[in-house]
Amino acid sequence: MSEPLTLGVAGLGTVGMGLIQLLSAHATRIEKMLGRPITVTGVSARSRKKEREAALGGAQWFDDPVALAKDPSNSVFIELMGGEDGPAKAAVEAALKAKKHVVTANKALLAKHGIALAKLAESNGVALNFEAAVAGGIPIIKMLREALAANEVRRVYGILNGTCNFILSKMTDEKRAFADALKEAQEKGYAEADPTFDIGGFDAAHKLSLLTCLAFGAAVAFDEIHVEGIENITSADIEAATELGYCIKLLGVAMQTEHGIEARVTPVLVAEESALAEVSGVTNCVGIDGDFAGNLLLVGPGAGSKPTASAVASDIMDVARGLVLPPFIRPTSVLEKVKGLNLKAHQGNYYVRLKVYDRPGAMAAITKRMSDENVSLESIVQRRPGPVHPGQAAEPAPGEAEAAVNVILITHDTTEDAMRKALRAIEKDGKITERPQMIRIEDL
Amino acid sequence: MSEPLTLGVAGLGTVGMGLIQLLSAHATRIEKMLGRPITVTGVSARSRKKEREAALGGAQWFDDPVALAKDPSNSVFIELMGGEDGPAKAAVEAALKAKKHVVTANKALLAKHGIALAKLAESNGVALNFEAAVAGGIPIIKMLREALAANEVRRVYGILNGTCNFILSKMTDEKRAFADALKEAQEKGYAEADPTFDIGGFDAAHKLSLLTCLAFGAAVAFDEIHVEGIENITSADIEAATELGYCIKLLGVAMQTEHGIEARVTPVLVAEESALAEVSGVTNCVGIDGDFAGNLLLVGPGAGSKPTASAVASDIMDVARGLVLPPFIRPTSVLEKVKGLNLKAHQGNYYVRLKVYDRPGAMAAITKRMSDENVSLESIVQRRPGPVHPGQAAEPAPGEAEAAVNVILITHDTTEDAMRKALRAIEKDGKITERPQMIRIEDL
Repeated sequence: MSEPLTLGVAGLGTVGMGLIQLLSAHATRIEKMLGRPITVTGVSARSRKKEREAALGGAQWFDDPVALAKDPSNSVFIELMGGEDGPAKAAVEAALKAKKHVVTANKALLAKHGIALAKLAESNGVALNFEAAVAGGIPIIKMLREALAANEVRRVYGILNGTCNFILSKMTDEKRAFADALKEAQEKGYAEADPTFDIGGFDAAHKLSLLTCLAFGAAVAFDEIHVEGIENITSADIEAATELGYCIKLLGVAMQTEHGIEARVTPVLVAEESALAEVSGVTNCVGIDGDFAGNLLLVGPGAGSKPTASAVASDIMDVARGLVLPPFIRPTSVLEKVKGLNLKAHQGNYYVRLKVYDRPGAMAAITKRMSDENVSLESIVQRRPGPVHPGQAAEPAPGEAEAAVNVILITHDTTEDAMRKALRAIEKDGKITERPQMIRIEDL
Repeated sequence: MSEPLTLGVAGLGTVGMGLIQLLSAHATRIEKMLGRPITVTGVSARSRKKEREAALGGAQWFDDPVALAKDPSNSVFIELMGGEDGPAKAAVEAALKAKKHVVTANKALLAKHGIALAKLAESNGVALNFEAAVAGGIPIIKMLREALAANEVRRVYGILNGTCNFILSKMTDEKRAFADALKEAQEKGYAEADPTFDIGGFDAAHKLSLLTCLAFGAAVAFDEIHVEGIENITSADIEAATELGYCIKLLGVAMQTEHGIEARVTPVLVAEESALAEVSGVTNCVGIDGDFAGNLLLVGPGAGSKPTASAVASDIMDVARGLVLPPFIRPTSVLEKVKGLNLKAHQGNYYVRLKVYDRPGAMAAITKRMSDENVSLESIVQRRPGPVHPGQAAEPAPGEAEAAVNVILITHDTTEDAMRKALRAIEKDGKITERPQMIRIEDL
């Protein structure tokens, strides 16, 4: 029997303890596969709690994760602390410099410093694996980096944030208001007390930036990704989308266009018969269009102690099996440089909801602004404001100074630039009571 | 730049030529990833056709695939000829003995000789990769062997044969008869002139045997798998299933039960709201329930020149990256021995369709036989025979000697053994005009 593979595990939260549990539960199975055991020889966490000591066996305690990362008693450093800078970054750098393989679940760290860390890993001849950083238990990193490596990827897209998908599912299936659905997500532990990071789309954008690098062999900076959250999605949008045969999802999309790579996290309308529309609650899904493999879709749990631990363990087993790959699919020295991820050239259909003063000529002015920008309309639906159920007309809300109606427009194929210009002109005309709602329609 | 990775490709049919096309189209991309090019140095096929010579570049021609497999001018042997014995087996063995890595798409060869070939690969320290053998472009082998390796797999299941799924989809969506849908599949090139191998479930069983080995780290003989095809599925079954909220699919399922591993390829009823019910036409899908990763579902093209070539290329790139794993997830010396894949202990709900003589007491006799075996019924639906559309009663077919009605039973949870005994007794009672139709209901 060969020598054990020794791990230093920094971070003993839900993922860290999930990993400890997995390695203990499946020690025999793993040893049979690898021909060697995996042993946790050192651990580090914020506070040293008595109750978990039993589970940790003989692992040595380190107060300082950087000391653990440098300690020669372990050969693989597992970073499960989180945080885009601070101790996580310092410890990962220390481990790589000590020529240790690193496995991390830290998407924020990688979205900000991934390319630099990959360079460091490559120059030290070690692995930097991060399967758990994107879509929890769905092995999308391995899929892009290995299984589909021979393909030119045309598009990668996915429901990458379970919190947002939970909220949107609740709003759709149970006709709940945004604030109400968010509250339930918080009560269930799916959303933080300050939910901005999730509902603002930033968590999904971190993940998308990693997928974009892998899919296109390109160095993509996180802050080049266009991000819109779900905080402005109203019940009126959900209802209008449902009536029109769509479903609203927060989608991360990175795709090749004739103008370069477009990468964005935004709410989108997807056809209700598409496979993505079926993905509800905290489930994640990722789709890849490869030029040879065709269209693949992966669906699974996007978070949670056990699925994330499974992904971390898979990364560790790859290390045990001697697999050391360029973290971002090709050596950092030959990553493509991409420019202009902005959406001005985005092409597609759009959903627009306008709250229009009920005055003569308002609609004429609006449609004129659209046609000025060559935006043609597939459908126009005028609805009373407020939560109107299909086939049921609501009275104007009492106390409303002037009547306004919700007008839903679905455009034919057009460009982002034309849409923005048209909506800016409509705003200036003063015929609407609030900022226009514009949601892209995703063709899947 | 490092030395090229040299390939000997045996078999230049649709998959072989797809691979040649991929390697040529993506030569630059692949070289950037690997730091070395991949070159086809030798080829072999049944007939040497002039028109493809251009595409083959400077590759040397071999009349005999075994000679190609032994030739030192290539270091990886790609077997794309097919056939469970004969030249494919001889060539793969010769290549492994010559300490060459082997990549093959040949499920029949592996289902029959996989364990022996894996042993040969292991003793020679080389890879035996077969991603393309199961589910075309869906990287299910890598998923089980690597991404989910740390999990105890509880169940793996899938729509593994596009031909059957195409036929069942046509029967369901367009209310076509089996023979008619089969004919269209043949015209479209999805089914062979002799379709037995596909529609009898044998192709899916080959694939399932490989998935079973990988999922459970076990040596499973192909002929231990219980196989039923779709040739006895009638329009009456499709219609009854639809009315009851189900969809009929040919499913391969391997799962842990308290009685051991159960592995079977059979038509099953799946709830119409399950993700599998949405998978129509020649698309494949595979689901895995892991104890840590949770439930994962992969959907994608199950066959075709390009998706299969993508899978073969991924196997080749793994070799180029130095990854050599035990072909069946753990060394053959420590594979589990499994016994008793038979279905007697299968537990679940059942759909039964009986064509019952329209005589007094017939139903009483049938329900008595069920209750004798402790099978309780969730629902009983009596229908006129023939293709009856919902809400429309058909006349008895003219010339029918004695009126008979279709009776559909859905059972509560019971065992295969009880069902078989009950149906045998019902047959003996002589109250039905043809053999009972029994289809398992799969809980997904």
